[in-house]
Amino acid sequence: MTMHSFEELSAQFAARFASRHFPDHPATLYDPAVYFLGLGGKRIRPALCLMGNELFAPIEEDAWQLAIAVELFHNFTLIHDDIMDKAPLRRGMTTVHEKYGSSTAILTGDVMLVVGYDYISRIRSPHIRRILQLYNQTAVKVCEGQQLDMDFESRSDVTMTEYLQMIELKTSVLLAASLQIGSILGGAGLGNQHAIYNFGRNLGLAFQIQDDYLDCYGDASKFGKQVGGDIVASKKTFLLIKAQEAANAAQRKEMTRLESAPAAEKVAGMLQIFTDCKVDDWVRELKEQYRLAAYQSLEDIAVISKRKEPLRQLADFLLQREY
Amino acid sequence: MTMHSFEELSAQFAARFASRHFPDHPATLYDPAVYFLGLGGKRIRPALCLMGNELFAPIEEDAWQLAIAVELFHNFTLIHDDIMDKAPLRRGMTTVHEKYGSSTAILTGDVMLVVGYDYISRIRSPHIRRILQLYNQTAVKVCEGQQLDMDFESRSDVTMTEYLQMIELKTSVLLAASLQIGSILGGAGLGNQHAIYNFGRNLGLAFQIQDDYLDCYGDASKFGKQVGGDIVASKKTFLLIKAQEAANAAQRKEMTRLESAPAAEKVAGMLQIFTDCKVDDWVRELKEQYRLAAYQSLEDIAVISKRKEPLRQLADFLLQREY
Repeated sequence: MTMHSFEELSAQFAARFASRHFPDHPATLYDPAVYFLGLGGKRIRPALCLMGNELFAPIEEDAWQLAIAVELFHNFTLIHDDIMDKAPLRRGMTTVHEKYGSSTAILTGDVMLVVGYDYISRIRSPHIRRILQLYNQTAVKVCEGQQLDMDFESRSDVTMTEYLQMIELKTSVLLAASLQIGSILGGAGLGNQHAIYNFGRNLGLAFQIQDDYLDCYGDASKFGKQVGGDIVASKKTFLLIKAQEAANAAQRKEMTRLESAPAAEKVAGMLQIFTDCKVDDWVRELKEQYRLAAYQSLEDIAVISKRKEPLRQLADFLLQREY
Repeated sequence: MTMHSFEELSAQFAARFASRHFPDHPATLYDPAVYFLGLGGKRIRPALCLMGNELFAPIEEDAWQLAIAVELFHNFTLIHDDIMDKAPLRRGMTTVHEKYGSSTAILTGDVMLVVGYDYISRIRSPHIRRILQLYNQTAVKVCEGQQLDMDFESRSDVTMTEYLQMIELKTSVLLAASLQIGSILGGAGLGNQHAIYNFGRNLGLAFQIQDDYLDCYGDASKFGKQVGGDIVASKKTFLLIKAQEAANAAQRKEMTRLESAPAAEKVAGMLQIFTDCKVDDWVRELKEQYRLAAYQSLEDIAVISKRKEPLRQLADFLLQREY
């Protein structure tokens, strides 16, 4: 029994993923695709697919094909999301629509999604129908999450329940499904598939909550971002949603005023409201709930504990960031 | 042996396709999808899938699932193409991006493509991998065709070979693949699959060439469109591409001048150049080549002639329009 760490699998995947996934012509369609994949990324989802497989059996060739499929799907969503968000940069580089125009960016995303399905068609597993169904269900959910995210932009009455659901659809389900797809290949039963899916789902939610928290309360030197960046950008976060729910009339009025205040005043003012409403405690507690649920889901998987070590270490690494 | 006509299968499909293919929520994502499918269409591709199946065997449940998949794929391409083309209308009704915004139109197309794959995942055929591969190859080609179409817009030196390839990718391969997918379900061997694919490919090209021809030389009362509409819109057509290849220096200069001339003068001037360069004869001959190739491909299919009658009648109907 040789288990691999997340870092090992992510690196192995990156080496394999560096090969070309597209034809050469027309270059006007495929150069943008190659450009975008070249921007890199942590390759978390494909590594999860491989880890989900290895939890139950030695990693098989099909898992590599499906790892490529989920990473192509993820990059398709990024290309299209960037168009919708009018984002100029991704990983510090020009986005596809900025560099090649929106029409080409739409088509490049489309073809990347299709090529992802082509990798699925290459697998030999007898579970191909089940895997295709799970992949489709997940893809539909990610689209729904992005639509809800856009819908929420123009609303100031988004509830925490709605927001949690949106984050789950937009970010957690793909992490969860990547693990489950790997586990199906490994021969996991339905109970174990369910548990590993929930591990990924809870891990994803805890991580996203932590991410929002650290943007306000992280150690700037360790976190590597400007503290309060989300506040300045008026971005909806777990903190803001909770504050909108918890604030009294005076605080709501102050939040409306701060909307258009200078950056420094806006950050200080919002942080004060967060503290007054105990939003920080509440959000830390919310993350803790999902963190514990993730470890519980991991416990629920019926394989010997030692095999779970790489997933446990990954959760430790992702969720025990210093505040 | 009860064979069905194109009209019968198209109508049966339309009745079945009228059921809902999407969840209810979020309505902001799925209402646009339902709206667009409600605009109708001739449902040619799904009928071809059913006809391809029935040429070799009684129509099976899988064929209906795949018919829905190809029609959803086709509608996905229309929604995204309309964004790229900035088209305000489709079938006389407001396009999705005009009615709901570009971001939602991108996502609605995306989710429609994914739901198409979900219908594929429902089939029971042992040929699911082969069908998925053919569907993916076709989808990639359609994307390439759309990209080439956009690339050609800004070029005045597009060759007939390039233009034929673009039209084949953008419109013919999906017709061809719809037939082939049905034939795979029906148990057709590789030779017959190849022949029915070529029938669809040649039929599609002949129809597209005829369509361009009729826009200039059709009987306006029968054709139901303004004669010369493509010329007024400076749309690339088989006629224009051929004229650009065949014109002498003086004619080229005149074509450049006509670009910005008033509509009536532009149509009359271009028609004169088409006549002088014998573009009309040439394009009629080109259509005739593909029409004959389509009938030859139909001949090449090794089933008794009577079974081919519905496909023959469809070709007759589509390609023997009066000039």
